[in-house]
Amino acid sequence: MSLTPQHPLSPGSTIGILGGGQLGRMLSLAASRLGFQCHIYDPQPAGPAAHVSRSETNTSYEDTEAVLGFAQSCDVVTYEFENVPALTAKTAANAKPLHPNAQVLTVAQDRLTEKTFIRDKANVPVALFESVDSIHDLKRAVKKLGLPAVLKTRRLGYDGKGQMIIKTEADITKAWTMMNDAPAILEQFIPFRREVSVVAARSLNGETAAYPLIENVHKNHILHKSTSPAQDDDGRAQALAINIMTALNYVGVMATEFFELEDGTLLVNEIAPRVHNSGHWTQDAACVDQFELHIRAIAGWPLGDTAPKHTVEMTNLIGDDVDHWKSLAEDPKTFLHLYGKRDVKPDRKMGHVNRIIG
Amino acid sequence: MSLTPQHPLSPGSTIGILGGGQLGRMLSLAASRLGFQCHIYDPQPAGPAAHVSRSETNTSYEDTEAVLGFAQSCDVVTYEFENVPALTAKTAANAKPLHPNAQVLTVAQDRLTEKTFIRDKANVPVALFESVDSIHDLKRAVKKLGLPAVLKTRRLGYDGKGQMIIKTEADITKAWTMMNDAPAILEQFIPFRREVSVVAARSLNGETAAYPLIENVHKNHILHKSTSPAQDDDGRAQALAINIMTALNYVGVMATEFFELEDGTLLVNEIAPRVHNSGHWTQDAACVDQFELHIRAIAGWPLGDTAPKHTVEMTNLIGDDVDHWKSLAEDPKTFLHLYGKRDVKPDRKMGHVNRIIG
Repeated sequence: MSLTPQHPLSPGSTIGILGGGQLGRMLSLAASRLGFQCHIYDPQPAGPAAHVSRSETNTSYEDTEAVLGFAQSCDVVTYEFENVPALTAKTAANAKPLHPNAQVLTVAQDRLTEKTFIRDKANVPVALFESVDSIHDLKRAVKKLGLPAVLKTRRLGYDGKGQMIIKTEADITKAWTMMNDAPAILEQFIPFRREVSVVAARSLNGETAAYPLIENVHKNHILHKSTSPAQDDDGRAQALAINIMTALNYVGVMATEFFELEDGTLLVNEIAPRVHNSGHWTQDAACVDQFELHIRAIAGWPLGDTAPKHTVEMTNLIGDDVDHWKSLAEDPKTFLHLYGKRDVKPDRKMGHVNRIIG
Repeated sequence: MSLTPQHPLSPGSTIGILGGGQLGRMLSLAASRLGFQCHIYDPQPAGPAAHVSRSETNTSYEDTEAVLGFAQSCDVVTYEFENVPALTAKTAANAKPLHPNAQVLTVAQDRLTEKTFIRDKANVPVALFESVDSIHDLKRAVKKLGLPAVLKTRRLGYDGKGQMIIKTEADITKAWTMMNDAPAILEQFIPFRREVSVVAARSLNGETAAYPLIENVHKNHILHKSTSPAQDDDGRAQALAINIMTALNYVGVMATEFFELEDGTLLVNEIAPRVHNSGHWTQDAACVDQFELHIRAIAGWPLGDTAPKHTVEMTNLIGDDVDHWKSLAEDPKTFLHLYGKRDVKPDRKMGHVNRIIG
């Protein structure tokens, strides 16, 4: 499945972004550096991305006429989150190029489809998993995979929401009740040595680029810290990520999260068909950052120099962590990025800090 | 003249920027990174800065009611060019803090006032100069300073506009005719070894910071290339620049251009009370860049880490230089910055390229 070489999109062209949160904001800032204009589509007006963009459309994702008008005003359409409704994606894609393509969304929106695709189409290893649609399925799956295991909703889970660890047989009923009859997936529990991720891009012309391995630490299921280049980066993770992107005929930046086992085995946990929190460190590593890389990829531009010149540690500012902005702004080798969100809420990503550590 | 320590402006506050060109654009992008919103004031709608900012006001600088309304909607007001009319500055400053202050504009808008201030109030050396209001003055000034010498309009000159070298006595009448009776200044011609500049900041709290020395090469009187850290940087230029800023009770980023003579003597050529083209290299030197530095200074924030981690060479893209964007985007260690201007015109600054060279 090779891509046809395309003429790159000229500076001055308009990039449409579905979703107007912090990822859309940082995509828009990067697009501006290259002379592009941005049009944001988000049901909520005046969010983080719209503040820094030329235009915005604020209506529901289900308003196909608005989606069509939005897409027609743009030269290419992309998105900042993977839960773009299928009809929205299809409507946009009928009017203008949509990258990553609509099939990517179908795969990434459903954990069962995603794991099956990665295992069977991309031939990349994932943890063992079973489809679960009933308590009966769950009991059978537990028997097959053993315990502990993790029960997750197939759709709409993020930051640990919609998942539960089943440690003993006594947890089974409680876990299924929590699912509220939603289609689910049971996954083998992976006792990992560390969590790592890869942020990589594939351009309209089939060119690929990947940053060094990123090591991630989560707190309360939310990304807390990412460091890159990580120790012991032998390039295997990047190769696996690119296999998945090729299988998806992917255009843009994609993040792939892995569990690394004690013996070095890498199992894909999940993919995110977009720029990713674990790639924010690239903004201050003196290379083309993940946001500009995504814009370059979807615009058919050369991907540019993605080799970081520094080791950077990114720390998220969650909820009232952001209140420390003044002292963070004083720290040497430290770069502060705030998202312009008006209200501080617990667990809300308010900004991040990049520190050059090597 | 010490500054009263102030509470820093909180993220979410609004920065007003008079002028909506590429400098306003890059100021706005930097302000966004810190969570600020920007309001642009420019007679021309939808310019480079407005495309990336929350709001814009488009009416003449002489519309004091509009200027007042603009300033009242902001928490602090700044400017991207030194030819802001005095009444505009005064009107804004009556409503909200204006940084740099209105006196700075008075000094910087008139070459005679500027040179006199630098020499007499800041005690910083400049080339010898004489005020010229008539052909009679000019002849007397030529006698005093000798030839060659440079005749310049006192106001509104930039990029070599409104100036002429007088090489022989035969040029005197022609030069005066070119002035069209505008008040002028005659300056000693300086046979310099190189042109260097300093970009430095002074914050609301009196904290100062300066980047390393910058070496500049002009082509047709327009900045072509800047390299920093430049060779033979002994810190003298930065100290002189900070003397001028202190004398002006300056808040924000200021650029100071020097002629460096064969014997190492530094003479100030001019100051620019704003972010400056010769400071664009800071965007990709892995430190707080000049745009963010200006925002931090006027917001009363800590200035942060301004020590560059790389040597960077900045090259301007003038007129149709910008047509090479695709090949520039491919170059290693190269960062492309385009200003989103619709029409390419000769001598128009369309973008710039930063290259890490060490």
